Parts: sequence; C-alpha cells; structure tokens
Amino acid sequence: MGRGLVNRLLALLAAFAALALPGMARAEDGYDLWLRYAPLDDGMAADDAAALGPVTSASAPTPTIIAARSELERGLAELLDGHEPAGRGIVLGLARDLDGAAAREAATLEGQPAGAYRIARLADGRILIAAQDDIGLLYGAFAFLRHLGAGEPVSTIDDISAPAFSLRIIDHWGNPSGLVERGYSGRSIFDWWHLPDRLDPRMIDYARAEASIGINGVVVNNVNAKAYVLEPRYIAKLRRLADAWRPYGIRVYLTARFSAPMELGATGTADPLDPAVRQWWKDKADEIYAAIPDFGGFLVKANSEGQPGPQDYGRTHADGANMMAAALGDRGVVLWRAFVYSAEDSTDRAKQAYNEFVPLDGKFADNVILQVKNGPVDFQPREPFHPMFGAMPHTKLMLEGQITKEYLGFATHLAFLAPLWKEVITADTGHGGVVAQNLVGMAGVANTGSDRNWSGSHFDQANWYAFGRLAWDPRMSSGNIAQEWAAQTFSRDPGFLAEVVPMMLGSRQAVVDYMTPLGLAHQMGTGHHYGPAPWICDLARPEWNPCYYSKADAGGIGFDRTATGSDALAQYAPTVAAQWRDPKAMDEDYLLWFHHLPWDFKTQSGRALWPELVHRYDRGVAEVDAMAATWASLAPNVDEQRFEDTSEFLAIQQREARWWRDASIAYWQSVNHLPLPEGAAPPAHSLDWYEALSFPDAPAD
Amino acid sequence: MGRGLVNRLLALLAAFAALALPGMARAEDGYDLWLRYAPLDDGMAADDAAALGPVTSASAPTPTIIAARSELERGLAELLDGHEPAGRGIVLGLARDLDGAAAREAATLEGQPAGAYRIARLADGRILIAAQDDIGLLYGAFAFLRHLGAGEPVSTIDDISAPAFSLRIIDHWGNPSGLVERGYSGRSIFDWWHLPDRLDPRMIDYARAEASIGINGVVVNNVNAKAYVLEPRYIAKLRRLADAWRPYGIRVYLTARFSAPMELGATGTADPLDPAVRQWWKDKADEIYAAIPDFGGFLVKANSEGQPGPQDYGRTHADGANMMAAALGDRGVVLWRAFVYSAEDSTDRAKQAYNEFVPLDGKFADNVILQVKNGPVDFQPREPFHPMFGAMPHTKLMLEGQITKEYLGFATHLAFLAPLWKEVITADTGHGGVVAQNLVGMAGVANTGSDRNWSGSHFDQANWYAFGRLAWDPRMSSGNIAQEWAAQTFSRDPGFLAEVVPMMLGSRQAVVDYMTPLGLAHQMGTGHHYGPAPWICDLARPEWNPCYYSKADAGGIGFDRTATGSDALAQYAPTVAAQWRDPKAMDEDYLLWFHHLPWDFKTQSGRALWPELVHRYDRGVAEVDAMAATWASLAPNVDEQRFEDTSEFLAIQQREARWWRDASIAYWQSVNHLPLPEGAAPPAHSLDWYEALSFPDAPAD
Repeated sequence: MGRGLVNRLLALLAAFAALALPGMARAEDGYDLWLRYAPLDDGMAADDAAALGPVTSASAPTPTIIAARSELERGLAELLDGHEPAGRGIVLGLARDLDGAAAREAATLEGQPAGAYRIARLADGRILIAAQDDIGLLYGAFAFLRHLGAGEPVSTIDDISAPAFSLRIIDHWGNPSGLVERGYSGRSIFDWWHLPDRLDPRMIDYARAEASIGINGVVVNNVNAKAYVLEPRYIAKLRRLADAWRPYGIRVYLTARFSAPMELGATGTADPLDPAVRQWWKDKADEIYAAIPDFGGFLVKANSEGQPGPQDYGRTHADGANMMAAALGDRGVVLWRAFVYSAEDSTDRAKQAYNEFVPLDGKFADNVILQVKNGPVDFQPREPFHPMFGAMPHTKLMLEGQITKEYLGFATHLAFLAPLWKEVITADTGHGGVVAQNLVGMAGVANTGSDRNWSGSHFDQANWYAFGRLAWDPRMSSGNIAQEWAAQTFSRDPGFLAEVVPMMLGSRQAVVDYMTPLGLAHQMGTGHHYGPAPWICDLARPEWNPCYYSKADAGGIGFDRTATGSDALAQYAPTVAAQWRDPKAMDEDYLLWFHHLPWDFKTQSGRALWPELVHRYDRGVAEVDAMAATWASLAPNVDEQRFEDTSEFLAIQQREARWWRDASIAYWQSVNHLPLPEGAAPPAHSLDWYEALSFPDAPAD
Repeated sequence: MGRGLVNRLLALLAAFAALALPGMARAEDGYDLWLRYAPLDDGMAADDAAALGPVTSASAPTPTIIAARSELERGLAELLDGHEPAGRGIVLGLARDLDGAAAREAATLEGQPAGAYRIARLADGRILIAAQDDIGLLYGAFAFLRHLGAGEPVSTIDDISAPAFSLRIIDHWGNPSGLVERGYSGRSIFDWWHLPDRLDPRMIDYARAEASIGINGVVVNNVNAKAYVLEPRYIAKLRRLADAWRPYGIRVYLTARFSAPMELGATGTADPLDPAVRQWWKDKADEIYAAIPDFGGFLVKANSEGQPGPQDYGRTHADGANMMAAALGDRGVVLWRAFVYSAEDSTDRAKQAYNEFVPLDGKFADNVILQVKNGPVDFQPREPFHPMFGAMPHTKLMLEGQITKEYLGFATHLAFLAPLWKEVITADTGHGGVVAQNLVGMAGVANTGSDRNWSGSHFDQANWYAFGRLAWDPRMSSGNIAQEWAAQTFSRDPGFLAEVVPMMLGSRQAVVDYMTPLGLAHQMGTGHHYGPAPWICDLARPEWNPCYYSKADAGGIGFDRTATGSDALAQYAPTVAAQWRDPKAMDEDYLLWFHHLPWDFKTQSGRALWPELVHRYDRGVAEVDAMAATWASLAPNVDEQRFEDTSEFLAIQQREARWWRDASIAYWQSVNHLPLPEGAAPPAHSLDWYEALSFPDAPAD
C-alpha cells in the first residue's frame, strides 16, 4: 500500500467528482417515479450484493427480454450503490427453456394467464425469474426490483403472481392540440405534432412505468374524440408509439368518433347498419392492423354529452358497438363506455346508464366490453358502486376509475384513491360475488402530463401506481400498496412509513368529509369542478346544478332514491338495496345519496343530521391539519424539493378544506335557517363572499 | 501516508459514488441552458483554479449580491471540476465600497448606466467584479462565468460593459389557462393556478437565465389580454413572482386589456377621457404598486386584431396610452404596441402602423414607449425594417422581435435569428443613424415553455440567448453570439465551434430561401402559419390570404410598393427608399417585397426571375441538407440525447424544406404556366396533393 494505490484512488475520486457534480445540482424532481431505485442502506446493499450475481437469460433475447435484463441491471446498479454483486446469478427464463430445479419452479405457472411470473431462489443460490411468456419475465424483473426497492432482503423474496384481469388499461383524455381534458399536470405527454418523426424519450420511461405496474393497454386520445385521428397521418404516429411500447407489453388503443366516416367525407351517414359505414370501419381496421398488428381496439363514447352515436340513427348501443366489433374481428376489442349522460331521463341521472344498458344484456358481441364508471354518477369523492356491476351476466364489463382527481381537488389536494377503488371492487353486488369478480378489466383515466413529476404532485403518482397494482391484483390492500409505493418513492425508513402510510390511507376520507360528507355528491362548481358551489341552481339542465344533487331545502337534505323517490335503489340486487333502505341502520357514508332526510334526523352518533353534517366537515378539516403536521414531521426523511413541494400543496389544501367547509355551511344555513351547532366555528366569510368567487382560469375545464 | 489516508479516500469515494449514480442515469436534457457550466478540460481547470480563490464581497450582502456570489460559487465548482481554487480571491464590490486599485478600476464605470460592470485582475492577483449597483454585480458575475465557460483563461479576462438600452424585456404570450399563443415548447412556464401559494422552482432558474443575458423586464401574460388578470387575485400572484425575481433585477409587467374597467364592472365605458375610467386606472395602478413597488408597467395591444382600444371611442392611440401613463405616473411605463391590424386600410397592410402612429409623433407622454415590430408586416423570415424607426423623433420607440418562430418552422426548424435582428438594428434609417440608435429598448416574444429544454428545441435556446445579448449590446456580431452560446451550451472544442457556428449563421437564410425567397412574405398557411399555402386566396379579408402578399399571376409576381403601387416605399426616408426603388440595382433579398415583376425579369445572377426563384428554393433545400450533414459529423462532440434530438428535427426540416419548395413551385407553375428551369427537379406531388394537406392540430394556433 503506497503512493500507487493512493494515486489510483485519487484518480477515481476525480472521476466520481466529475460525474457527481452535475448530479448534485439537480434536486429530486419526481421524474423517476417509484422506479427511483434509491441506494439501499449500506448493510442491506452489502448483503444483497453478496447474494446476487450477473443477470443472464436462459431464453433467446427478444426486445422484451432485453428490456427486462436492462431494467434489472439498471435497478441493481443503483440499489446496490457500488457494492459489486458477488453471489450466484439472476436467471431470466421462459418455462420452456428451463430445466432441472428451475423448470420445476416455472411449472408452478402452468395454467396461469399471460404475464404471470415466478421469482424463486434455487437451491444453488441462483435467483430465478421465470414466466411462460416474454412479458411475464419483464413483469417478474420489475417485481424483483420492487421487492428489493421496498427493502426486502434477497433471501426472503419468493413470489408467484398472475394478473387478475386480462385488460389493464390507462385512458388518456388528451387532445392532439396537447390540452388534456381534466388534466392537472400540464400538457399531454404525447408530442403528436412531431410524431412519427420524433419519439420523445419520455415515451420509453412512460412505458417502463406502466409495465412496472402491469398496465398492458393505453388509450392515447380523448374519449371526446376527433375524427381525424383515424386518418393515415395519425395511424403513422400511433404506429411509432406502438413499436416503441411493444417490448413493454403495451398495446395501443384509439378512441373512435362514431361519426368519423361521415366527418371524413367517406359516407353520408354513420348509421351502424348502413353497409357503406360498416365497410368503412372494416377497411379502417384493416388499415390500422396493417400498420399495427397488435392494435388493441377502439374506445367509444357514444350518445353522451353531445357525442354522436347509434341512437342518432334509431339504433341501440349494441348495434353501434357490434358494428365496430365486426370491423375489428378477433384482432381487437371495442371498449364501449356506459357513461351516458343525455337529456333523456331527468328524474335521476344516476339511473340512466343502467336503464339504457341492462336491457341489452346478451346482445353485445363477444369482443365488446362495456366500460362502466365506478359509480352511477361521475367520479365523486364517494359513490356507491355502479348498479350495472353484476346486473349484466351475459356481457363483459370493465371498471373505469379516474386517476386524475377531477372532483377531488385536482392535483393539489392529497387524496390517495386506493381506498375508493377498493370500496367498489370489493363491494358485494348481490348477484353473486363482489364487483371484481364481474370484471374482465380495469381502465384508469390518466393523471399524467408534461409536468416534470408526471402527475402534477408527488402524491398523485401513488394513485397511478395504485390503479395499476389493483388492476393486476384487486385483492391487494390499500395499505400494502401505499407502503410499497412510499418505500420506493420516498424512503424505506420504518418510522417514515409508519407515519406516511396511515396519512395516505386517511386522506380520501378527509376529502369526502370536507367536500361532500354523508353521501352528498356533486357540490363542486359546475364546469371546472373546483371548489364548493352548493348554491348553483339556475342552469338550464337540472342535473348541471349542485342543488339537483343535494335537494336541500328548509325541510331537509339528500336525494331520495328509495321507492318514494327516484327508486334508483331498485337497480341494485335486493340484498344490496336492503342494506341502504333504512336510513337509521345503514352505512351513513351513503346516507344522503339515497335519502332525503329532515335536518333533525337522528344519526347513529346520537347527533341530529345538521350537527352531524357540521361535525363531518370539521373532521375533514382537522384531518388535513393532521396530515400537514404529519408531513412536517417527516422533513428528515424526504429530500428538500419534494418535501417543500408537498408542504406547499398541503398548505393550500388546509386553506381550501376550510373554504369547502365554510362555504358549504354558510349555504346550508341559508337554506335551513338553523343556528350553528354549539362549539362550531362560524364561516370566515358571508355566503355572498363565497358565491362571488370566480375561477375563469381553472385548468382543464 | 498509510491506511488512515486510504480509508479516508475510500470513504470519500463511497460518498461520491452515492451522489454520482443518480446523476449518471440522467441524459443531458437541455434544462441547464447555457448555464451548464460543463467542466473545463483538465489543464484549463487546473490553471484557472490556480488563479482563482474564494468569492468574497466588499459590499454588504443584499439578495442580489447573494445571488451573484451563489452563482459564482455554483459555476466555479462545476467548471473547475474538483480542482480546488488555490489563488487569490474573487471580490465582488460596489464602487462606493472599494478602495485602492479596486476603486480605481471601478471608477471607470462612472457615468455608465444601471447594470454596467467591470471585471479586472488587480495587481495583487485578485479578480475584481465591480459595479455601481447590485444588479451590475450580478451581471458581472454572469459575465465572468460566461468568459470562463467559453474557455477563456482567467489571465485574459478583462471586461467593462454597459447595456445599450434601459429596457430589455421578454414578452410572454401565455394565457392564464396555460396555453401559449404561438408557443411551440409546451405549456406556459407560469403555474398561475397555484400562485401565489406555490412558487415553482423553475421560476428561479428562469430568472437566472434571464439575468445572465441582461434581461430586466418580463411581461407575464398575453398581449391578447384577459381583464381578470388585473383583479386582486392576480395581483397577489404577480407579487409572488416579482418578489422572487427582484434579486435578479427583473421587473414584472402586465398586459392590460383596454376595456378592463368596463369588463370588470366598474365603469360603463372604457373611454380614456372619461374621468371614472381615468380614476379606475389610477386606483388600479396604486393597488398594484402597493403590492409591487417596482412594477414595470403595462403592455397594451389596442385596436388591433379585434382588441378594444381608444379608437372605439373616437380617441387616438395617444389618448389611450397617455391615460394609462398618467395612472402609472413616474412609477412605470406604458408599452403601447404599434402592431395595429384592423380593416381600415386594405390597400397595403404594411403601411398601416406608420399611417396611424407617425402623425401622433410628439403627442405621447414621456413614459409611453411605442413597441414596434422589426418589420412592417408580421415577423416574416425576412422583412425590411419598420419605417416607423427613425420617423418619430419625438417619441420613444422599442423594437419588438419574435423569439418564438411563428413563421419560421416553429421549434422544429433550426434557424438562428441573430442575423435577422442584426439586419434590422444595424439598418440605416436615413433619418440619422441606424435603427438601434432610435430605440430605448428591445422586447422579444418568448419561446419558453414547459418543455424540459425550455425552448422546444436545443437550438432555439440560442435565439433566446441572442435576443438578450443583442438587447444588452446591439453591436455584438451574430458570430460572436453563436460562438459564446455554442461553447457554453454544447462544447468548447474548436473543431466543433468551427462547424456549428457557420451552420447557425447560415440557417436563417436557408429558411428564407426555402419558404419565401427574394422578398416574398406570408406564404404560410393562414391561421397556424405552418407549411406552404401560396394558393389560399378565398378568405374574407384580403390580407388574410397569401395571394395578397405574392400578387402572383401569369404576368408576374411581387407586391408593388413603389409609387406605381401602394407606395409604402414613401414611408421610408428618401435615401432608404432610393436604395429599394430600382429592382435591377437593389438588394434582391427585398426584391418582391417592393416590386411586382414579370417572370422573365432579369435578376443580377443573369437568370430570369422564374429560374432565379427556383434556384433560391433549391439553395435553401441544399443548405438544410448541408446543415444535417454538418450536424451528423459533430456526433463526437455532443452528448447522445441532444445529438439525437437535433438530428431528428433536422431530418424533419430536410423533408419540410422540400415540401415548401415543391408546393411553392407547383403553385407558381399553376399561375405562370412556365416549364421548370432546366435541371430543376419536379415537385414530388401534384399541386392538388399539397393543397389537400390539412393541419387542424397545428400547435398554438
């Protein structure tokens, strides 16, 4: 040991310094999502490195297998943080290419669906990642890194997993112009203008992120669709995306405007029974498949909110969907949205989809899937599950959830949505089984955009993550998902996780409480859906008005959906309807969704309805204060930039929770003329003040 | 030297490795702009480190002086790349706080305007950065880093510099919604929705970038203004920006919608002579100054393209501007745009601004500045300078240039604009002096957006840089600016610079040649301004049509602006008009701008006009091919990501240059019925094919 070694060390130091300095200037900005691969602590990294070796593949390289190896190498290099792997190797292999002990492990996958994987430590110390198909190897690679990234020691990792649903889809509501409808994280992530000539490198990181949580389909354009995305110019753009994403197991889908053949000048009608129309869609599908052999299919919003559809020609949704399904044949699927919102039934908007679709059960082609929102109205902070689930035994259904928080405070408010989706997919339909058992897939409306952190806020990344994880395995608990995500994204410190996970788990109920407690819904300002506006009652269509949903008057509050009212309750199976029929005995989270009750109705807490309502608003406000205090205590565990970003947003949420509470209470008082319950703080401003607030610049309206 | 030292070195190595690894995963993405501070080569870094020492300040710390120190420390740490400064220190000091040799150097600044700085090496080896005001120290610090970053050795750096203009402004055309009119780099950089609660860290990097090139004012919102940005809610947002930018010497400005007092419900009229209107603006100014004591003032687009203005009340531009100027008083300025584009004068749109404004010379208040576009039409690839320059001796004028390339291929085409602006500011007005001598400032329409590289393309950063540098020193050559920028942004390698600088310098002429050669203008598709559309001739207003600008027919092509035509030539001083009067002797770059000539007119090359036109298109196409070949040869000098980004865009530009050439030639042939000149390639498609192309999704239309 002498000058030679020291010189070599100094040279190394200089080399590292050169690399390190540009890195030092960069704050953590969230771009890496949960694929951050932050270095393990030194002891864990040393142990893992001793147990791991080089990544090899027992199967011939394909683009997907190469992506799996490359992700493992990248992830391990960062996680192990300079500790050289010195153990036995990591073997990726398709079942058919394995033998001996590896083959026996892989055999446990027999009969499992596409994408299933097995991670096992073989007796000789090698780590096996096995699957029956290439994409299973990539999913297995991501799973292995997820286990490591969450801080599990190599020695305990043993995993076998298969996706619950074959369709795990993300819907983007972005327009070719770059505007994302209900998007709160900047512009669209798709650079349509420069495609196909330029493929933004973000598109690869996007595919990595989606594959890491098992997403296997992406609808790239808005459900309020432009016809011209079906033109050759756009098919070429889509092809470039499809080629880039194929190694990551992601199929591309397009939304199709029902009137496209007319608008593009090819036909004089869009009647789905017109032979020329049918031929146009068939030719269009052939044209797309010639460019994109694994094109996923069409997502269609028809006869809803002004979009064209088969009813314009006196045809049914089934006629329309089946026509497109015939055009696709066995090559793809039609995802037909059940969200229909037209002027037809003004008695109760919540009943409309069921009324239109359930009578068509059994009439849809085998490659048509109805995409049904989680609840019967529209992505509210809480709704009962949609009555269509379980009610159409001869029709394939998907659940549509909204990852972007249109009605939950945009990207600013912290609300972890796994509990919302879990409530729905674990709900007993009364028709045999829970909602998840009635699904062939899940589709989430993306919250991604051009913002550097993808989702507009760091914690909204968790909703993207959670949606994918639940679409893979709806049995996962919200807590496990939060824990996995927070450990990979922020810190594996157990003290940190013990604080942040409960904070996340309680956050959505906080939003429910300060916005729309006790089963209230749609009290947001019409149009932008931001902020309280329970007073709005003068818009042309009744269901555009928050007052339509609250039905608040001097006598009481709530929407009577029992037999004395709209009887939406009758759309549910009898056992389900029964649990919501008696306001005195039911789960009060849905109380005012189903019942119009007098202000002095006695709730289960012993409080009358009015003080209970105020209590819930106050509980929501207090919960946000507690979240902010919790976060403040976590400064030592989080990098400065992301800590600060989140703190600023929580401060806004604290103020806006009060705004919701105060404006709502001020309005209810103007209706019920009741004094504030004892001890309740009066609203900070008069009702006039709240009503005068105007947000012409609210994003993505 | 033993185990102890080795252990310490090993620990350091581990620490560096931890820092370096996340950095390694990041490609160069352009976010750092020209403030990249890439490590100097080892010998240069060692030499510079030996000549430099710690940064100290002889003056009491202020936010601006702290920013200057911090920038120096950050820049030096990265440039010197681990070499520890071991020489005499760097001293920042206001002239009044210096003594001895330092004071004598600082004294050379006496009489210089705000922001001037002196960089000198004192006899004792210290580096002095002196100024008369805080902001001069910040500008000096950036200048010192620029010298180092461009590869100059410390020993040769000796600089004294002062800004030519007091107003060096960037205009943002972004709406509160985030849409940037004529923006091709994503969404607005301003997160209006979360202001004032959240200040995006980008706002500080933005201010650093602007200060580094001497920009001292930013207009934050679109000239097509919303009235509500004058409401208290927005003043609070603006205040947060102003506070953040103040240390960087940047004053904020707002665009003011002339009808704001009416639209906000305060008055029944917006007549500038109405006492209530005058009082409203005075009160509004007071309200803004109470929040932002150094508010810059208002930028106004009035009676142009449908915007409201004083003419709506039978008042003049002077009446309107002076009313606002009175409201601001000596606290700020009114920047009144001379870009007026209304239906009043259909004979020649190019004449309108001069006709409306020159008769008002001397009628504007002292704190009114007319903001005049570089040319009389609208940011074309080439226009003669605006005839108002020099023609209003009793009125303050600013030049408005467009950094965003609305008419030059958006962010995709590479066109370095310094030569365009230099042509204008160095043009002799014929009224005594060149254009630059007639200005009090320059305003550039921003090309920044939410794209990670700020400007949509890496080379468009050069246009932002160049605009700032020219607003500071209009005498700088385009070549020096390109060299400075490229060395800091890409590579100091002399071989690289010897290739890339000429490529940049020729790039704008290439665009002129393949889009609108020989003085043609406005042949772009109406509305989006992308791609060729010389055939458009059926729009309601004549000057919306490309055919209005070309006046092409079987007999010839070009807009007769001589006495036999619109006589726009008469708006120029006689000596200037004289140089453009004779088509046979004039600078042919303006030939068809001023003259309608027969297709067989003999040009100076000896070719007839028609083959000369085709020759110029071909020259433009060939130049882009040469640019692409040059860039391809520079792969060894450029990081992979930015090399690839630029290569992809150049490939698009190559294809689109051909599109421009072919579509234009196909159209001219349909008009002149002439055969192609010998050797000229026929257009790739028929004229019908080009006419059928449609771009409903063109950005920022």
